[in-house]
Amino acid sequence: MRQANLPLCEEHFTWWFERRVERTLRRYSMVGPGDKVLVAVSGGKDSVSLLCALLELSEEMGFEISSITLDLGISGYSEACVEASRRVAGELGVEHHVVSIRERYGFTLDEAVRVVRRPPCSTCGLIKRYALTDLAREMGFDALATGHTLDDMARFILSSYISASLDELVRLTPSSASGLPGVPKRIKPFYETLEEHIRLYAEIRGLEYMPDGCPYAGTAPTDFLRAFLAELEARRPGSLYSMVRGYLKHIRPALQAQFGDGLRELRSCSKCGLPSSGEVCAFCRLREKVLKRLGRGGGP
Amino acid sequence: MRQANLPLCEEHFTWWFERRVERTLRRYSMVGPGDKVLVAVSGGKDSVSLLCALLELSEEMGFEISSITLDLGISGYSEACVEASRRVAGELGVEHHVVSIRERYGFTLDEAVRVVRRPPCSTCGLIKRYALTDLAREMGFDALATGHTLDDMARFILSSYISASLDELVRLTPSSASGLPGVPKRIKPFYETLEEHIRLYAEIRGLEYMPDGCPYAGTAPTDFLRAFLAELEARRPGSLYSMVRGYLKHIRPALQAQFGDGLRELRSCSKCGLPSSGEVCAFCRLREKVLKRLGRGGGP
Repeated sequence: MRQANLPLCEEHFTWWFERRVERTLRRYSMVGPGDKVLVAVSGGKDSVSLLCALLELSEEMGFEISSITLDLGISGYSEACVEASRRVAGELGVEHHVVSIRERYGFTLDEAVRVVRRPPCSTCGLIKRYALTDLAREMGFDALATGHTLDDMARFILSSYISASLDELVRLTPSSASGLPGVPKRIKPFYETLEEHIRLYAEIRGLEYMPDGCPYAGTAPTDFLRAFLAELEARRPGSLYSMVRGYLKHIRPALQAQFGDGLRELRSCSKCGLPSSGEVCAFCRLREKVLKRLGRGGGP
Repeated sequence: MRQANLPLCEEHFTWWFERRVERTLRRYSMVGPGDKVLVAVSGGKDSVSLLCALLELSEEMGFEISSITLDLGISGYSEACVEASRRVAGELGVEHHVVSIRERYGFTLDEAVRVVRRPPCSTCGLIKRYALTDLAREMGFDALATGHTLDDMARFILSSYISASLDELVRLTPSSASGLPGVPKRIKPFYETLEEHIRLYAEIRGLEYMPDGCPYAGTAPTDFLRAFLAELEARRPGSLYSMVRGYLKHIRPALQAQFGDGLRELRSCSKCGLPSSGEVCAFCRLREKVLKRLGRGGGP
């Protein structure tokens, strides 16, 4: 542990790592006893580690977990992701669901990328966010857990500082309730955990995760910020945590007090009923456009 | 102009550049008719350009300017800075003062760096900030103008976001009144101007500035942020302006409203009478320590 100058053996690292996740779960009241938590698993190191750590913590903290993997339909890649996720969930003995977005919504990510001008990673993010919430609601879960890391949060926050996007800046929280009945809250148990430590945890736990290899990787405009933040953390250990905590403790509350909840006012999408900032949610609009361009007819 | 995709000839660039500085002066009410403005000139591109641009604007906006250069006593460097500053001020026909900090305060920057553990750039910044305010007050100026650029402000703001320093975050304003009678306000007319444009302006105007060459350069921990921000601006033109404006329009007002003016409460230093956050200001404390270690006896 470079921040704390703390040399740990494998066993104690694992203990320290899981205690850290527990602290995050408790600090932001992410789960309560009896809660049913759906863990989103892509097959990468972050999500398989999340599944493993939450499984460890679920017993002593008294919540239940299940897992889900979306088959996004990225040719030559999604099959392997689904397979890796299924294998890890199986080895851990956690219930695992696989849902094909082609079957459920009528189009694959590859098709969406081909017919809309939006950047691939942005389209993918929108689809995943929507589908996971949609499925967690349908399956009656209390919370949907995603593998967003401290590095991810630092990148989103930095990006919002740069673009001066207030709307985004108030949304980058560790836990967010939908405010709508039956819609599970979204939680990020790795909000305070570095990817560097997650990688180590996955290796010590012997989790066989998918290496990075998405064909759309490298196209995101924030990849450049990712490199900067990695170097920042290497030069000044603790910087990402300090930046994210500073945001959460000072910047966000101040913005919320000044500009009010109006900033993140959500209503129910008139088509699907899930949270939306407008009359029709971004996913339903995307879906309609994609199906139309593919000649497959309208929405739900 | 990459942001605006605006190709300009030399004459129109100069016109555009000075209009931009004028907009900054007016937007933040930096100067009023009849004001006496002291321009801090180090001899580098930013400060000689500031002197030139303010001279151009002073007539139509009805303020008066004079200039000052500190001889910081950096061996093999300060002499050349003073010389370059004197020459540019002479060519522009602006009154110019040179003050040696060795003569006025009893020690050089080289001596201070040798005897205190503080990083050189931090010690230098403290001395310059203090001495310039002290001299501008003594000479009866209404405002002290410094050459801080948009790049500088973006770096300070980013650094404060990372370290989550609230105290700093509310202080990074384009114009700040001291709140104490007789103490001039500090203004940054290049708050919204990129160094890239300043360099071009200096060249078109034929200003012979000192190239970077401070022997302490490269020791500042924020040099790494400087490189990142330069690359950010090159990749996404307009990013620095967006970040700095976002800070000024949204983040700072929200922090100020939430945490109050207590954050930047200033009183009068009990030794020198200039603004201080404590009983004795940071400069008087530094000076006392340096003089004592050099065996030159206490402060004023």
